[in-house]
Amino acid sequence: MNSSKVFICGAGPGDPSLISLKGYKLLSKCDVVLYDRLVSKMLVDKIPSTIKKIYVGRESGKATSTHQSRTNKLMLTYAKEGKSVLRLKGGDPLIFGRGGEEAEYLRKHGIPFEIIPGISSAIAAPAYAGIPLTHRDYSSSVAIITGHENERKSHSDVNLKALASAVDTIVVLMGIERIKEIVQGLRAGGMKGSTRVAIIEKGTMKDQRVILGNLDTILNKAVRYEVTSPAVIVVGRVVSLSGHLAWLSQNGKV
Amino acid sequence: MNSSKVFICGAGPGDPSLISLKGYKLLSKCDVVLYDRLVSKMLVDKIPSTIKKIYVGRESGKATSTHQSRTNKLMLTYAKEGKSVLRLKGGDPLIFGRGGEEAEYLRKHGIPFEIIPGISSAIAAPAYAGIPLTHRDYSSSVAIITGHENERKSHSDVNLKALASAVDTIVVLMGIERIKEIVQGLRAGGMKGSTRVAIIEKGTMKDQRVILGNLDTILNKAVRYEVTSPAVIVVGRVVSLSGHLAWLSQNGKV
Repeated sequence: MNSSKVFICGAGPGDPSLISLKGYKLLSKCDVVLYDRLVSKMLVDKIPSTIKKIYVGRESGKATSTHQSRTNKLMLTYAKEGKSVLRLKGGDPLIFGRGGEEAEYLRKHGIPFEIIPGISSAIAAPAYAGIPLTHRDYSSSVAIITGHENERKSHSDVNLKALASAVDTIVVLMGIERIKEIVQGLRAGGMKGSTRVAIIEKGTMKDQRVILGNLDTILNKAVRYEVTSPAVIVVGRVVSLSGHLAWLSQNGKV
Repeated sequence: MNSSKVFICGAGPGDPSLISLKGYKLLSKCDVVLYDRLVSKMLVDKIPSTIKKIYVGRESGKATSTHQSRTNKLMLTYAKEGKSVLRLKGGDPLIFGRGGEEAEYLRKHGIPFEIIPGISSAIAAPAYAGIPLTHRDYSSSVAIITGHENERKSHSDVNLKALASAVDTIVVLMGIERIKEIVQGLRAGGMKGSTRVAIIEKGTMKDQRVILGNLDTILNKAVRYEVTSPAVIVVGRVVSLSGHLAWLSQNGKV
C-alpha cells in the first residue's frame, strides 16, 4: 500500500465476523499491523504472512505508560518509513480504547491517519445476550462508563450517584474488578436493590456466559460463578428481556 | 439459504464499508432483504438480483405503527415460507432501532432469529468528525439519548436536567428537530453556556458537515447552516478535539 498513514481501527468484540468490511479489507492491504490483546485470534490469523504483524497488548507487570509509548513509537517509525499501518484495537477505538490519544500523537508528529470505528462490546455483548440497550417501553437513554479508575486522575471519575437517576440503562466496561463499588454507588444514588443487572462474560464469543440478577444479588452471583474479565455489566429494566430474547445458544453461526 | 430465520442486522452508518463482515456476507446469502430508509444505497445495490429486496422504510404521512406492523408481517410471512430474511436497519438495531420490539414479535410467533450489531452513528459520526467520545483527559462516561419524543409515552422521557451533571459526554440521535428543548434542558441542569457542542450532519457520508459551537451559540448556527436530519449532536469537552483531530476531509477513502 505504501502510503505513510495510520489506520486506527476497531476490530469489534470477540466474534471476528463483527469487524467492519473496511477494517477487514485493510488486514490484507496494509504493510504493518499493530494489534492489541482483545483482538480476535481468528482475525490475526487472517493477516497474510507477507504483512508484518506485531503484538502490542499490555504485558502484565509493565506500566500502561511504557506500553503506550512503545506502541506510539512503532506507529511513528513505520509511518515515517512510508508504510501504511493498521492499528487494530478490540471493540471501538474511541470507546475507552485510547484511540483519541493515539490520534493526537500522530497529529503532533504530522502523520496522516484515519479512524475506523468498530462495534463496541458495550453494544454487542448485550445484543448477543438478548438485551436491547434501548426500547420504546423500557429505555430511551443509555450511558456507557468504564469501571477502571483513571490512573492519571486529571478529570473527575464517573459520577455513579448522579447516573443512577439520569439514564434508563447503564453499561459498564471493564467493571468486574470494581463491581462492589459500582453497586454501592448506584444504590447510594437511589437505585432500588431490585434493579435488574446482567453480567456478560466473554461477550459474543463462543463461550459467552450471561449471569442475571439484581443490585442486591449480583455481587454474590459474580463470586459464585467466578466471573472474570472481559465482562460487560448492564443495569436497568431492559435486562428483564434477556431471558425472552436470548438467541445465541439456540442458533448456529452464520 | 432456506432456513426459516430472521437476521435483525445493523447496516452501520452512512459509509457502506462500515457494515460488519457478517452482515455483508448475508446480503448475498439470504432469501429476502427488508431494508430501511437509512441503509446505504450502495449496500442495497450489492444485493444480487436473485434475492428479493423490499423497502420497508417509513413513508411520510403514514403512522409509524402501520409501517411497523407491515414490516412485522413481511418478516413472519417469509420466515413461515421457510425463507431466511435479512432485516437490515441503519446503524445498530438495538440503539433506537426497534430491533428489540421486532425480536419480541418474532419470539411471540416462534420464529428463530439472530441479532447482528452494527456500528451506530452515535459512535461513527463523532469518530469521522475527529471527536473521541471518551478520553482519559476529558471523558470517562458517555450517554446516548434520542431527541425523539416517545409517541407511546409508556415510560419517562429523557431526563436532560439530571443528565447534565451525570456524564461527561452526551450524544443525541434524531435530535435536530428538538435541539432548542435539548439545549434548554441541559442549561436547566446547570450546564454552562460555554459547553462545547458539535452537530454532525450526514455523519460518515461523503457530504458530511460538522458544525461546531457551544450551548449558547449552537441554535443560531443550526439555523444559519440550515442543518437537516440525519444529524448527530455531541455535547461535552471532547468536542474541543474536533478541530485538531478531524481527518475525513484531508484523507481519501480506503
